[in-house]
Amino acid sequence: MLVDAFWSEFIGTATLILLGAGVVANVILPKNKGFGPNWLLINFGWGLAVFAGVYAAHASGAHLNPAVTIGLWVADKPFFENDLGLIDGTFGHALVYFAGQFAGGFVGAVVAWLAYKKHFDQDADPGVKLAVFSTGPAIRSYTWNLVTEAIATFVLVYWVLVNGGTPTQIGPLGVALVVVGIGASLGGPTGYAINPARDLAPRVAHFLLPIPGKGSSDWSYAWVPVVGPIVGAVAAGCLVRTGVGV
Amino acid sequence: MLVDAFWSEFIGTATLILLGAGVVANVILPKNKGFGPNWLLINFGWGLAVFAGVYAAHASGAHLNPAVTIGLWVADKPFFENDLGLIDGTFGHALVYFAGQFAGGFVGAVVAWLAYKKHFDQDADPGVKLAVFSTGPAIRSYTWNLVTEAIATFVLVYWVLVNGGTPTQIGPLGVALVVVGIGASLGGPTGYAINPARDLAPRVAHFLLPIPGKGSSDWSYAWVPVVGPIVGAVAAGCLVRTGVGV
Amino acid sequence: MLVDAFWSEFIGTATLILLGAGVVANVILPKNKGFGPNWLLINFGWGLAVFAGVYAAHASGAHLNPAVTIGLWVADKPFFENDLGLIDGTFGHALVYFAGQFAGGFVGAVVAWLAYKKHFDQDADPGVKLAVFSTGPAIRSYTWNLVTEAIATFVLVYWVLVNGGTPTQIGPLGVALVVVGIGASLGGPTGYAINPARDLAPRVAHFLLPIPGKGSSDWSYAWVPVVGPIVGAVAAGCLVRTGVGV
Amino acid sequence: MLVDAFWSEFIGTATLILLGAGVVANVILPKNKGFGPNWLLINFGWGLAVFAGVYAAHASGAHLNPAVTIGLWVADKPFFENDLGLIDGTFGHALVYFAGQFAGGFVGAVVAWLAYKKHFDQDADPGVKLAVFSTGPAIRSYTWNLVTEAIATFVLVYWVLVNGGTPTQIGPLGVALVVVGIGASLGGPTGYAINPARDLAPRVAHFLLPIPGKGSSDWSYAWVPVVGPIVGAVAAGCLVRTGVGV
Repeated sequence: MLVDAFWSEFIGTATLILLGAGVVANVILPKNKGFGPNWLLINFGWGLAVFAGVYAAHASGAHLNPAVTIGLWVADKPFFENDLGLIDGTFGHALVYFAGQFAGGFVGAVVAWLAYKKHFDQDADPGVKLAVFSTGPAIRSYTWNLVTEAIATFVLVYWVLVNGGTPTQIGPLGVALVVVGIGASLGGPTGYAINPARDLAPRVAHFLLPIPGKGSSDWSYAWVPVVGPIVGAVAAGCLVRTGVGV
Repeated sequence: MLVDAFWSEFIGTATLILLGAGVVANVILPKNKGFGPNWLLINFGWGLAVFAGVYAAHASGAHLNPAVTIGLWVADKPFFENDLGLIDGTFGHALVYFAGQFAGGFVGAVVAWLAYKKHFDQDADPGVKLAVFSTGPAIRSYTWNLVTEAIATFVLVYWVLVNGGTPTQIGPLGVALVVVGIGASLGGPTGYAINPARDLAPRVAHFLLPIPGKGSSDWSYAWVPVVGPIVGAVAAGCLVRTGVGV
Repeated sequence: MLVDAFWSEFIGTATLILLGAGVVANVILPKNKGFGPNWLLINFGWGLAVFAGVYAAHASGAHLNPAVTIGLWVADKPFFENDLGLIDGTFGHALVYFAGQFAGGFVGAVVAWLAYKKHFDQDADPGVKLAVFSTGPAIRSYTWNLVTEAIATFVLVYWVLVNGGTPTQIGPLGVALVVVGIGASLGGPTGYAINPARDLAPRVAHFLLPIPGKGSSDWSYAWVPVVGPIVGAVAAGCLVRTGVGV
Repeated sequence: MLVDAFWSEFIGTATLILLGAGVVANVILPKNKGFGPNWLLINFGWGLAVFAGVYAAHASGAHLNPAVTIGLWVADKPFFENDLGLIDGTFGHALVYFAGQFAGGFVGAVVAWLAYKKHFDQDADPGVKLAVFSTGPAIRSYTWNLVTEAIATFVLVYWVLVNGGTPTQIGPLGVALVVVGIGASLGGPTGYAINPARDLAPRVAHFLLPIPGKGSSDWSYAWVPVVGPIVGAVAAGCLVRTGVGV
């Protein structure tokens, strides 16, 4: 069952990053049919990337995000439960989930690069080519960028932890719409990584891939979209454990 | 149970205002990734703010809006009912709901300011910085601005009061989409407060927060997005009590 | 029960036209917060107008459109059926539905005018002021405009007649999304009336209301968005009666 | 039952192509109300075209796409199953599905031309008139265009094959949103045919119809949006047969 969970997180996160990096590529790489600034298109693209990814990862509970795994762990909730069994959320289980998420994120970024290969080969600012893979701040300030990422991730993880209290039958559409909303509402300052695997794994792909005219992978910022989401996830998990308003 | 309702309304309304103020900040504060006029983005941002907020407030029936509370009270409907009990909607109950809504709205606005701190520190028109927190009229006319707010809130509260007659399983997505629709269709003249807590609590936050270059909190207009929604909510509650078309 | 059906269609169609005319006003009348060309905003505004209107009209089956009533009649299907009874769809029933739809459409248009009163008072092209109320062709050609309206209405009414064959629990969101889609895909040439009450009742309101600087109500075109939808509805009803592909 | 399946695929695919070609016509043909570049409008238009088409094709399982049929065949899954019977997915069944899909795609394209007749009669670049019917590459490279189409179709068909593992009640909205997402995220380089019938049948219609000022039907590219989707569908079907992550 743990092997299934690894592959489930792998395929789901690969789908997430393929479609998420894809929408950014479409909007910012030259000559694409979707080229031109369009934040709502990016928000829907990432939200629907979550939507498709969650369906693809039904065998593991579809975390697709180490922050979700950490939030469940802190809140002392099982990672996944169905008729066939339970993944109850030990530290060892978390490592398997993380491995699937980072490996999937890397492969998804590589496939997105293949899908947009001829557009990556065009002349463009190196920062634009990096932005397909990883987030960067609108105004660089490690402290405040961290605050923004932590707040945005708190909203996501808190929602994941408490949404079971509301009757609804829309399935993965719920979390997809929350991600559209977080992007619209809290994505302005940092581009809403809200997921360490979403940012770090594609950054490694950017570093390794033979992209013509690519520049720095901006490693000095790379810790912010990892630590910020972890802080937000731990805070959400702790609040849920108190039981206030849940 | 009433204490739970307070915290539920608090967390839900804080989520609503965090994401609602956030999308406005993203669109109108300089240097944001979503910067630039985009009414549909604002409509979806606020609608999905309602969506996330309703899930976070499942322990109180997720009013998140004094106008909804008033509408239910006038229509003589319970505020909330589930397997564990009932909040039947006395005046005392309403005061607890209002307290949670206003306190949550204030905190949500403060957190939105933190998320966009570096962008609030940029030079911008004082009216722009206020607009992240509170609504203002496109053409100032207290009478007609009040009419618009009353009409728009009537549509919202009437929908909340009657939607139970239609079988559907989409849960909070219903009210979220109605709010997207009201914003698209009736938000042009006043920016659709349609919720006294949504407008007044963030206005107080604007008044108190140390925002560089902020201007007036426009208190002369502040009563319109409070009284207008109350008028609309009372009208909707009265119509439902007559039983016509329900 | 027929009186209930009248009021149900009245309130539902009033909601539809209030929000539908409202989104057009927001986009095309000067000084509005949503001012500026945005076809997707108009499509979502009208779709969500249908969404809200359908919930408000649950006591009659929420036709909100004479073309839907005609389609059901031609297909020999009941207008409405629930635990309490049946409106089986005689010609007399149809007249009651039409009366509610047209009266509601008129009132909805008047309320939309009130909501946007100060913006109607601004200087603007008379054609713009009419366009809030009624549709007009991009390229005037009575024959081809009729063809477009008939095709678009066929898609709507056919969907209404056959969607029961597909299991889903999204309720009124289904027809709302179909209307968003028809607007996006077939609204270009004529502005997609696809509903005689949606076009004619507001046109009468435009004719009667004291709008400063208003021009002609364009009566020479008024028959197209009435006859076109009827043709499409009859065709859809006939196809369903044949049973092919149903 | 096979005759029903033919007509079901015919009507569903005709609806899909009518609305899909329609949204492109609205955006790119002169003088339309939706004229002007808007990738998100195109994405929603095509997604909702799928939505409406799936409801219209409930008697065959609503493939509407030879790639879906091929994916099910490779994965050894039935084409359709309900209380009345089963279409289990032999090669003969697949031919009936293909016939319905191509015939429907042709008729849908013809009806879209009728709906936009007066706009096709305007002066416009021949490439624009072709683009209403069929896809073309942003940067022509048969190899990489094929890769992009194969990747995008893989995402679609894999989702169709595995989504049954996730509980949800949104019905055809799921696949519609996946198609919106694929368009947003992977449509930039080739315009996302992801469906041989969607591209080839309208191309034949373009070739045959008496459109003023039309140019080449670009037959040299026509094989890419046929072969690419087939490659992606076979890959998705094979992966599902392995059982990894499913």
